[in-house]
Amino acid sequence: MKRDLIDITDLTVEEIDELIAKAEDIIEHPEVYREKCRYKKLATLFYEPSTRTRLSFESAMYELGGQVLGFHEAQSSSATKGESVADTARTVSCFADIIAMRHPKEGAPLVASMKATVPVINAGDGGHHHPTQTLTDLLTIKREKGRLDSLVVGCCGDLKFGRTVHSLIGAMSRYPNVRFVLISPEELRVPESVRTDLLEKNGIDYEETTSLEEAMPQLDILYMTRVQRERFFNEDDYVRLKDSYILTPDKLRTAKWDLAILHPLPRVNEISIAIDDDPRACYFRQVLCGKFIRMALILKLLEVE
Amino acid sequence: MKRDLIDITDLTVEEIDELIAKAEDIIEHPEVYREKCRYKKLATLFYEPSTRTRLSFESAMYELGGQVLGFHEAQSSSATKGESVADTARTVSCFADIIAMRHPKEGAPLVASMKATVPVINAGDGGHHHPTQTLTDLLTIKREKGRLDSLVVGCCGDLKFGRTVHSLIGAMSRYPNVRFVLISPEELRVPESVRTDLLEKNGIDYEETTSLEEAMPQLDILYMTRVQRERFFNEDDYVRLKDSYILTPDKLRTAKWDLAILHPLPRVNEISIAIDDDPRACYFRQVLCGKFIRMALILKLLEVE
Amino acid sequence: MKRDLIDITDLTVEEIDELIAKAEDIIEHPEVYREKCRYKKLATLFYEPSTRTRLSFESAMYELGGQVLGFHEAQSSSATKGESVADTARTVSCFADIIAMRHPKEGAPLVASMKATVPVINAGDGGHHHPTQTLTDLLTIKREKGRLDSLVVGCCGDLKFGRTVHSLIGAMSRYPNVRFVLISPEELRVPESVRTDLLEKNGIDYEETTSLEEAMPQLDILYMTRVQRERFFNEDDYVRLKDSYILTPDKLRTAKWDLAILHPLPRVNEISIAIDDDPRACYFRQVLCGKFIRMALILKLLEVE
Repeated sequence: MKRDLIDITDLTVEEIDELIAKAEDIIEHPEVYREKCRYKKLATLFYEPSTRTRLSFESAMYELGGQVLGFHEAQSSSATKGESVADTARTVSCFADIIAMRHPKEGAPLVASMKATVPVINAGDGGHHHPTQTLTDLLTIKREKGRLDSLVVGCCGDLKFGRTVHSLIGAMSRYPNVRFVLISPEELRVPESVRTDLLEKNGIDYEETTSLEEAMPQLDILYMTRVQRERFFNEDDYVRLKDSYILTPDKLRTAKWDLAILHPLPRVNEISIAIDDDPRACYFRQVLCGKFIRMALILKLLEVE
Repeated sequence: MKRDLIDITDLTVEEIDELIAKAEDIIEHPEVYREKCRYKKLATLFYEPSTRTRLSFESAMYELGGQVLGFHEAQSSSATKGESVADTARTVSCFADIIAMRHPKEGAPLVASMKATVPVINAGDGGHHHPTQTLTDLLTIKREKGRLDSLVVGCCGDLKFGRTVHSLIGAMSRYPNVRFVLISPEELRVPESVRTDLLEKNGIDYEETTSLEEAMPQLDILYMTRVQRERFFNEDDYVRLKDSYILTPDKLRTAKWDLAILHPLPRVNEISIAIDDDPRACYFRQVLCGKFIRMALILKLLEVE
Repeated sequence: MKRDLIDITDLTVEEIDELIAKAEDIIEHPEVYREKCRYKKLATLFYEPSTRTRLSFESAMYELGGQVLGFHEAQSSSATKGESVADTARTVSCFADIIAMRHPKEGAPLVASMKATVPVINAGDGGHHHPTQTLTDLLTIKREKGRLDSLVVGCCGDLKFGRTVHSLIGAMSRYPNVRFVLISPEELRVPESVRTDLLEKNGIDYEETTSLEEAMPQLDILYMTRVQRERFFNEDDYVRLKDSYILTPDKLRTAKWDLAILHPLPRVNEISIAIDDDPRACYFRQVLCGKFIRMALILKLLEVE
C-alpha cells in the first residue's frame, strides 16, 4: 500500500518526529545517503511555477543519488491538450518512482494520488495545503531551539490568507506547552475556523495583537509573512499599516537573544536585509532544512532504509 | 556511418523485430541495462511541447544510466535568434551523444539529421511522422497478443488526420494475415493514399465502417483515437456523431474477452474512464512499452551492446 | 574564500593559461575527468534564454559526473514574486555547489556573487560581460594556431555593440605581438573607449578598415559577428552595406591557407553555409572548446584537483 503526502495531517506526530530525526541524521552524515535513491526517479510536475520549492525537491533527490524529470509550466504539459490530472499522474507513474506535484487548483494533488501508482507529494495546491513547507518549518524550529514544545511562537503579517501559518499552527499545536502570539492588522487576523478548530478546540493558549513591537519581548519564534497590498480594502490602510509589519533592526532591540526568525520566502521587503547577518535570522538556514526534510520524506515514501 | 530514425520505414521488419526483442529483454532484466549508457547524454530538442513523449525519452535514458539535457519550448531556444535547425543540430552534437527532436514543421528532424554528427530520432514532426509511437504500438500489441501477425485490427476515430493510425497500418501491413477494420465517420475516413499505397498495393484485407458497435465482435485489437470537434464542417454533425466513437463499457459488451484496447494518449473523453480498470484496457501499459522500446532504440542507435 | 568569474579580467593571464592547459588535458584524457564532480551540482539560473550557453554549461557539468538544476526563464522563477537576485542567489546556494547566471541586466551576476555562498559564473549579463565566451575564443585560437601570441586578428561586423569582440580584444591584447584588424562599417566601428583604453593605452598595433576583402590576406584569425539591421540609422545603409560583411567562399579566395574563422554563434546569414565544410571554418569546433573550457573553469572554481 503506497503512502502519499497530501496534507500535513496525513502524518502522525510520531511520523513527523521520525522524519525530523531522519533529516537530522542526513545533516550529520550526508555521505551515508548519497546513493540511497540510485536508479530512482522523481517527477516534479509543477502546473504553476515555484522555483524555490521545485529546486528544493530536485536537489533533495540529487543528494540521494536519484534522477529528476518533469515539467514546470502548465503550457508545456499535456494539460494543454485537455488531459486530466488523473491521467497525467497515472502516465507519469510509468516514468518515475515518486511524484511531487504543484497545482493552482485545490485538491489536484489528491486526485493525482488516487490514480498514480507511485507516491505523490503535494508541493502546494492553491491556497490549500503545502505540507513540505510545514515540515521544513518544524525541522528549522527543532534545529534552532532544540525542541518543538514549550515555545512562544509569534506569527506576524497576513494571518488570514497565509496558509503556511495556518498549517504551522495546526502542526505546532500537537506539541505540549506551545503558546501562540498572533500579530496582524485587524483586517488580516486568523480566520475564525483556525481560532475555533485548531486553537480553542485543542485548548491551546494564544493571544491576538496588532503590535509587533509589544509582542516581541516574549517570543521564542517569530514567523514572518508578507502583507500584500491587494489584501487591503483601501490604499490608505495599506500605507498606514504596512511599516508596522516590516521587521527592522530597530524592532528587534527588545527581542530575546536567542529568538529564531523564520520566513517561508520569497520575501519582498517584509524583513529588512539589514537583519540577514543577525544570527537570529534563520530563513536561509530554513531553506537548507527544506532540502533535508524533503530528503527524509522521499526516503520514507520510497521505503528506502 | 551513424543511424537515425526519421520514418518508421527507415527500419526493416527484421530491425523492428530485434528492437521488440530487445525491449522485452529489458522488461525481463532491467538491472542488466542500468549502466549501459553511463557517460552518455540524450538531448531532447522539443520545439513544441509534448510532455508525454519527452518524459518517455528522458526516463528511458535515465533507466539506461545516461543523462539528459535540452529545451522544450521554441521560445527558450536559440531558434528565437533566428538559428536554423541544421545549425542547432550540429551545435547540440557537441553536447550530446544522441538527439530526440520534436518539431511542428514536417521534415525538420530530417534536416537536423543531415547536419548532426550524432544520431537523431524524430519524436514527431507536425502531422507527419512519429516513428517511436509506432514502435510503441507494435511492442504493446506483441506483449498483449504474443504476436504481430494473424490479427484483426480495428482503428477507430479520426482516421483522416490521425498520423499514428496511418503509421500503424503501414507497419502492421508488413506482417502476414493482418486484417484492418477502419471505423470512422464518413468525413474522417482514411485518405485515399493510405487505401491505395498501403492497403491495396500490398494486398491487405480491410473493410471500412461507420459503426464501432458492429465492428466490435471480430476485433483482436481496438486502436482508439480522438475525434476532434474542429475536424467537422459543422457543429451539428459533430454533436450527432461524437458519441458513436466514444468507447464505453456498454459498447464493450460484444467484444472478445482478450481484446486489446490501445490509445496513443492523451485522451480527452473518447474512452470512458469506467473502462480504465478493465483488463482489456492496455493504454497505460502502452505508456510503459513506450519507455522500453525507446530504451531499445537508444541502445541500437548508440551501438551499445 | 570562494572565487567567482564575473569579468574576464578577474583572471590573471597565468590563470587563463592554466585553464587552457587544463581544458587541453580534458580533451586528451576525458575519461580521467568523468567522476571529478560526482555529488556536485551546478545551478543554471538563466533569466533570459540562451540555449547554446546553457547547454554548454550543462554538458560540461555532466561530463564531470555532476548534476544540474535550475531555471531558464524569468517567468518560471521566483523573480515573478518580486524576489531579488541576491536572495535567489543565496537560496540557490543551499541547492547547488556552483551557479552559472545569465541575466538581461548588467551587474546582476556581480550582485548575485556577493550574496551567494557558492561560486558564481557570469554566463552573460546584458551587453556587458560574457567571460566564458572569451575563454572559449582563447582556447579555440590556441587549439587552431598553437599559440595566443604573434597573430593578426581580424574582427569583422558589428564592432560597436558586439561585446564578445571587445572582450576578445581585451584578452588578446595581454599576449605579445598581437595585431588587430578592425573591419566594420563606419557606423559600427569599435567605441572610442576600446580604442583608447584597450588598444592605445597598451600600445597594441591595430588598423581600422571598412573592407573585409582588403583585410583578408594578412589575417591569421577572422572573428565574424553579425551586422544587425536595427543597428543602422536607415534601411538604405543597411541594404548597401550588409553584403560586404557576409563571409562567402568568394571572399575567402585571398585568405591564408591556415586562417581560423571563428564566430560566437548563433549565426543568421553572416557566414555562408557553403563555408561550413572548409577546414578553416572553426565555429563548430569552437562550440566544443566552449564545453571543455567550462569544464576546466568549473573544476577550478570548485577547487577540484
